[in-house]
Amino acid sequence: MNNPQLDTDGHLRHLLSIEGLPKKILNQILDTAESFAGVAEREVKKVPLLRGKTVCNLFFENSTRTRTTFEIAAKRLSADVISLNVGTSSQSKGETILDTVDNLIAMHADMFVVRHAQSGAAHLIAKHVPPHIHVINAGDGRHSHPTQGLLDVFTIRKYKPDLHNLRIAIVGDVLHSRVARSEIHALTTLGVPEVRVIAPKTLLPAQVEKLGVHVFHDMKSGLKDVDVVMMLRLQNERMNGAMLPSSQEYFKTYGLTQEKLALAKPDAIVMHPGPMNRGVEIDSSVADGKQSVILPQVTYGIAIRMAVMAILAGGQSANPMPAGGGTQ
Amino acid sequence: MNNPQLDTDGHLRHLLSIEGLPKKILNQILDTAESFAGVAEREVKKVPLLRGKTVCNLFFENSTRTRTTFEIAAKRLSADVISLNVGTSSQSKGETILDTVDNLIAMHADMFVVRHAQSGAAHLIAKHVPPHIHVINAGDGRHSHPTQGLLDVFTIRKYKPDLHNLRIAIVGDVLHSRVARSEIHALTTLGVPEVRVIAPKTLLPAQVEKLGVHVFHDMKSGLKDVDVVMMLRLQNERMNGAMLPSSQEYFKTYGLTQEKLALAKPDAIVMHPGPMNRGVEIDSSVADGKQSVILPQVTYGIAIRMAVMAILAGGQSANPMPAGGGTQ
Amino acid sequence: MNNPQLDTDGHLRHLLSIEGLPKKILNQILDTAESFAGVAEREVKKVPLLRGKTVCNLFFENSTRTRTTFEIAAKRLSADVISLNVGTSSQSKGETILDTVDNLIAMHADMFVVRHAQSGAAHLIAKHVPPHIHVINAGDGRHSHPTQGLLDVFTIRKYKPDLHNLRIAIVGDVLHSRVARSEIHALTTLGVPEVRVIAPKTLLPAQVEKLGVHVFHDMKSGLKDVDVVMMLRLQNERMNGAMLPSSQEYFKTYGLTQEKLALAKPDAIVMHPGPMNRGVEIDSSVADGKQSVILPQVTYGIAIRMAVMAILAGGQSANPMPAGGGTQ
Repeated sequence: MNNPQLDTDGHLRHLLSIEGLPKKILNQILDTAESFAGVAEREVKKVPLLRGKTVCNLFFENSTRTRTTFEIAAKRLSADVISLNVGTSSQSKGETILDTVDNLIAMHADMFVVRHAQSGAAHLIAKHVPPHIHVINAGDGRHSHPTQGLLDVFTIRKYKPDLHNLRIAIVGDVLHSRVARSEIHALTTLGVPEVRVIAPKTLLPAQVEKLGVHVFHDMKSGLKDVDVVMMLRLQNERMNGAMLPSSQEYFKTYGLTQEKLALAKPDAIVMHPGPMNRGVEIDSSVADGKQSVILPQVTYGIAIRMAVMAILAGGQSANPMPAGGGTQ
Repeated sequence: MNNPQLDTDGHLRHLLSIEGLPKKILNQILDTAESFAGVAEREVKKVPLLRGKTVCNLFFENSTRTRTTFEIAAKRLSADVISLNVGTSSQSKGETILDTVDNLIAMHADMFVVRHAQSGAAHLIAKHVPPHIHVINAGDGRHSHPTQGLLDVFTIRKYKPDLHNLRIAIVGDVLHSRVARSEIHALTTLGVPEVRVIAPKTLLPAQVEKLGVHVFHDMKSGLKDVDVVMMLRLQNERMNGAMLPSSQEYFKTYGLTQEKLALAKPDAIVMHPGPMNRGVEIDSSVADGKQSVILPQVTYGIAIRMAVMAILAGGQSANPMPAGGGTQ
Repeated sequence: MNNPQLDTDGHLRHLLSIEGLPKKILNQILDTAESFAGVAEREVKKVPLLRGKTVCNLFFENSTRTRTTFEIAAKRLSADVISLNVGTSSQSKGETILDTVDNLIAMHADMFVVRHAQSGAAHLIAKHVPPHIHVINAGDGRHSHPTQGLLDVFTIRKYKPDLHNLRIAIVGDVLHSRVARSEIHALTTLGVPEVRVIAPKTLLPAQVEKLGVHVFHDMKSGLKDVDVVMMLRLQNERMNGAMLPSSQEYFKTYGLTQEKLALAKPDAIVMHPGPMNRGVEIDSSVADGKQSVILPQVTYGIAIRMAVMAILAGGQSANPMPAGGGTQ
């Protein structure tokens, strides 16, 4: 089976999932993001790499937060951005997803950022579009959320550059998390020797070990001597269901407190993909504490999204053009 | 009665309906659109004709698709775009339409793109605004949708340049279609010798012949030897009503299939204003077939909207300024 | 108590309420707005003062009208604008306001425009953000709406430059109006010698006299010889409540008609913050009459918002850079 994410020369054509991305491409994205991380520090935070291009945010599922990060990234690259909440428009008029996509391509959209509640939606679109159109998966069902996985790895690399010597724990609802799958694939591909998952059995996928992770059911043993603690969001809708007793009970057992964090290495960093449920999966003192890198994750998320868009658009420079001159 | 669409020198001031537009103006719009059709092919798809102008999308009726085309067209002309879904805002606070318009003019809006469920809303606004403000009707009630009519004519001219030798059939719900009225006016004004409508009696306006069309009630005789087949969308809300037995029944009688299309000329083109109901008014094999020009219609729709905006703003050049230089 | 709106050098850091702003700062904003009032008259209505900056519209309460004015102002300053209707997004996922703000700062937002149904929301955010981030209150509960107060004063100064010789009447629902409080503070700070409020007792705050105003309960005595009549909007939800008999009754007693306006000075100006309830608080003949400056208020509102943003961003020039050159 050929990889729909790469063209015949092995270059990135779409970003659909981290699964199946070669290490070389992962490192290309991370290295390009390094150069964009600096753009945000400038007085004028724009580069003209996507000037005159139209990026189309195609959100079949509402997510203000994710949409905003892609919108900011695209605008910093000087693209025009069209945001469509498709849930509320043509779809209800009986048009198919692919008809909607074809129409936007006919309007000369250059890139699609796709969010959908169903796994595989971004793949379906990527398979359908002509060669000059690029698709980025911004989250599909439980399947994948690759830019989140990439920004997490980027953040880890910033604080713990030697990936080959890390012990990383992912804590919480791995079963329903599109983030966790993306993270695990990225970390194992980049050579992190030990990735752990810590969760009750009800929140772990069957045969999770096959992803190359070590499974723990309690924080005490799971957090021991780890360099990185990655907390997952507990969806509200899980809390009162059959899988969990209550959110208070969950916090007691799996919520990250200062006390539990003390089991990790003293310089361990704490991560969370947001939005946080304070007092459910994480205590406020940890979320706002000195080991937390939760807000830097958000910052690096913009750089990662800029890097992916720039690489897809063919400007995969690790040295983006300076702002100024005749640029937007 | 003087024509509210033209100024005293006979130049286009507003685009409200194709009814009443002289042939010279129709051709000016079509010829200007030719030049913009090329802009979309460039690496940087922008021209600075409306730089610093504010285009206001005033949508009293939701239409993501139409709003998006005008937004893309305005941004490609470098305008700033303000989109207001007025159904959900001030209107509900008791403000009148004209107060809303006056406020936006006071904020120095330069152009209004108006969509409203009531016929005549765009006319009302056009009659009210001062001379330097321009209004484009983006669809009002059953009355008119002039840019759709223009893009249809533009598409026909691209594929069948000799308009004086064409036989064109419009198929479906002519009664409720603002598109059909606009199309019929444009085609007869530009000298198309034979325009047919094909529909059950329940979906035709009374005395439709007075518009200068030939009426057919069956596809077999209606499609015979036509050069162009223009399908209309069947609104969902009509399907289960008193006018039609069922959507399956409709498809059997009036849905465009390969078999029925074979009655037209071998090189006939197939058009649809979108969004399509596949399997209701058109079969997928026809919609995606080699005679279909449905997606080119969408592409040319951007060029037509750019042309109308550029002409209204006073830059009715058939040779738009090159992109680049110091422009957005 | 130190003033959260000013930095240690006495420069404007946030605009939260007119209460507590020194006269010097009020005049700086008004004088800077003078220079921006001219920008709107140009062919190209843009200046590059906020190029590459990201302005974040954070609307916890829907207000298309106010959001639009800030969006236009920010775009005329060449900023990138991100609009978030937070009522419909992360808030419902359990994230706190301050977490939302922290995330947007991590994405390098430079300025927040905040609207919230609760008094003090903008203050809360201003207290939380780091020094390089600026907050503008776009209306919070009944508390404050400072840019509206400023644009009202700016409008008065345009038509009646000698503020020290004015008699001004504010008419209507002072109790529920965030506008009235802002106006009263601005007018008394700038030295207007006589500010009156005219309203039934049920629509006046307790001890309103302490704000430095003269209280009247009837139009006849209240409007006598005033230079400026500022009408307030009567919220629909008040009309059928316990406080008022009916909207017709209200109009009869407190609605501004030509007849009542004749009690004021012959050259008195009429103001209204919009949206108007014609026939409730104001008669159409007055709203559209020659003494009305209601639409100029809207125009000056853009200039005031541009001025506030430019001053906060550090470009408090009374002589904004010319448009053109290589800028957006």
